[in-house]
Amino acid sequence: MSAPVAPLPQVEHQRTVFADGMALDCGAVITPVAVAWRAYGTLNAAKSNAILVCHALTGDQYVAERHPVTGRPGWWETIIGPGKPLDTERYYILCVNVLGGCMGSTGPREEKTDEQGRGLGHPWGTDFPPVTIRDMVRAQKKLMDHLGIERLLAVIGGSMGGMQVLEWAATFPGMVYGAAPIATAAYHSAQNIAFHEVGRAAIHSDPAWREGRYWEDDTIPAQGLSVARMVAHITYLSEQALTRKFGRRLRGASALTFLEDVFEVESYLRHQGSTFVRRFDANSYLTITRAMDYFDMAAEHGGDLSAAFRGTKTRFFVASFSSDWLFPTSESRSLVRALNKAAANVSFVEFQSDKGHDAFLLDEPEFHRALGGFLAGCADRLGV
Amino acid sequence: MSAPVAPLPQVEHQRTVFADGMALDCGAVITPVAVAWRAYGTLNAAKSNAILVCHALTGDQYVAERHPVTGRPGWWETIIGPGKPLDTERYYILCVNVLGGCMGSTGPREEKTDEQGRGLGHPWGTDFPPVTIRDMVRAQKKLMDHLGIERLLAVIGGSMGGMQVLEWAATFPGMVYGAAPIATAAYHSAQNIAFHEVGRAAIHSDPAWREGRYWEDDTIPAQGLSVARMVAHITYLSEQALTRKFGRRLRGASALTFLEDVFEVESYLRHQGSTFVRRFDANSYLTITRAMDYFDMAAEHGGDLSAAFRGTKTRFFVASFSSDWLFPTSESRSLVRALNKAAANVSFVEFQSDKGHDAFLLDEPEFHRALGGFLAGCADRLGV
Repeated sequence: MSAPVAPLPQVEHQRTVFADGMALDCGAVITPVAVAWRAYGTLNAAKSNAILVCHALTGDQYVAERHPVTGRPGWWETIIGPGKPLDTERYYILCVNVLGGCMGSTGPREEKTDEQGRGLGHPWGTDFPPVTIRDMVRAQKKLMDHLGIERLLAVIGGSMGGMQVLEWAATFPGMVYGAAPIATAAYHSAQNIAFHEVGRAAIHSDPAWREGRYWEDDTIPAQGLSVARMVAHITYLSEQALTRKFGRRLRGASALTFLEDVFEVESYLRHQGSTFVRRFDANSYLTITRAMDYFDMAAEHGGDLSAAFRGTKTRFFVASFSSDWLFPTSESRSLVRALNKAAANVSFVEFQSDKGHDAFLLDEPEFHRALGGFLAGCADRLGV
Repeated sequence: MSAPVAPLPQVEHQRTVFADGMALDCGAVITPVAVAWRAYGTLNAAKSNAILVCHALTGDQYVAERHPVTGRPGWWETIIGPGKPLDTERYYILCVNVLGGCMGSTGPREEKTDEQGRGLGHPWGTDFPPVTIRDMVRAQKKLMDHLGIERLLAVIGGSMGGMQVLEWAATFPGMVYGAAPIATAAYHSAQNIAFHEVGRAAIHSDPAWREGRYWEDDTIPAQGLSVARMVAHITYLSEQALTRKFGRRLRGASALTFLEDVFEVESYLRHQGSTFVRRFDANSYLTITRAMDYFDMAAEHGGDLSAAFRGTKTRFFVASFSSDWLFPTSESRSLVRALNKAAANVSFVEFQSDKGHDAFLLDEPEFHRALGGFLAGCADRLGV
């Protein structure tokens, strides 16, 4: 058995706290509720140039700057900045850590509060109520109200970020001028739920998890969370990407040993697992994977996905990647069909890429040009 | 932390022990070496009607009878029996537990022996040397020699069983009249290695594994092995199969809880994991997944797969399934191209199925008819 792993570092995040709290889809009320967020660029006087970027499962609000824990560049820094597709000289780019996250927004890692909002001296842990993608969006909406932003130039995001984009357009249609759901779907598939459940089972079976009360031991369920990350990471890539990166290359000269890492791909996966546990909270991982699994917009609208977008004036830019098998193009097509049925303004592109689901985070110039063009088109129409 | 899980039941298997032992690809020698096997039908006087069935990663020799541990029907009982495609009134059907397995053949669960073949009073555990697919085939060859079978009417198998079929045809070409590699490939892909590594990481991170010495505690690393089985099981199915079986169906009325099993697919997966640990040994799982990962027939033959089959007289029946993403049709096509380059006698069929990799084990009448026809054709030519 390996040595206990120290808890995540404490970082000061930029936060906005709403003392009135928030009611969740499950019926629970969280008081107060805090959102941690970052912004880049300048909000114009008309407050008409704001673009909300929604992050994916293990992303966070540090989208275009050095990450305070890992020291690595922001996860979408390639496309956010002066002169880039998300041009910070033209737009005001916002990104909010999701409700249930572990980078400063209210979530399992933050101090539990009672109904009067009094701190109870220990984290929420698994007492944190289940949240939905819509709950995440409602928390972001509170921040927009607080900032006086009545309409977002665009809401964009990939993967779980794309789920939030769809909920934004459906729940607050008047507030979303342009919507770019990328590498995503209007529901989480049985296969994706199954992969998530493997990750959760790995966390649950780590004795250090202790039914979520690992903070009492000043440690974390590092091994379980690492295995969860390993399996998820495979689903983010493609067979082609793995073959190009590693193929069957061996780490050492001799293959026929019981060494733990015989092939380079194994070593890479283990590295992904072990670095992840130093920046992400296991109970947050449980909470957020559940939120994704719950997501089914058609079910929220009487079984008819198009009903979610009836009468919408939002302009949609739907993007998928050809080698993405986690959120395959077929699921984007279903979404586009529903948008068509609602007579929505929608463009759809499947980008050719062999990088799998992760393509939306990587250097894909054609995708970046198209996304930048869509945002500029929205901005031109609004006179931004 | 859950209670310790009892070791696997001890079962008396039909075994043949070779006192002279066996040299492995890694250089180690195992003395003695035992193979556990089952046979159905009657070997004819000319010993010309024997078909060897090779089992997959978690299969075993109980291919056409009640399983002694689970009590369930044999894993290919649908196609083996009187009047079935593998007709026991015509053929003598053999199946051998692979070297490294846990159903009676020499493997990590059996008693460790020294170089003189003396028992050391405890299992091999992770002292068991790494084995290859070719080692498994060499052990089966010893049994064929012992039985006086000079030529097999056919060698057939799916998945890892298909890897053994290919090694049989390449290593003992004069002994294999017909070869049916099904839902397999001539190498294990980077993605497949990666999925195996997740399973191994789950076993390694289970404190009950104890670096493989769990037998000292009279328990097994049930949680780690269960997670390994869960992730593997997803790869055996297809998105379509999962959706058809479970879709997003909930187990109870209310979705928004932290209950471990919210969706039916989760409950199913957990069940798969928990039943598996009652019949399979964790160290065997580590050994056999490694053997699959090592498998790369082209590398064994100077980088040219066709060299493995140069001059072969074996008749090949290559079969794949359209929704199999673990061993996709493209890998069968590569194999067929190499066989063509060797001017081998080869037929290839991709069967339409939405059942994923597991299709080779399930009710696929078109596949069964084609396989039965191939075997009957071989038998007719040999006058069996």
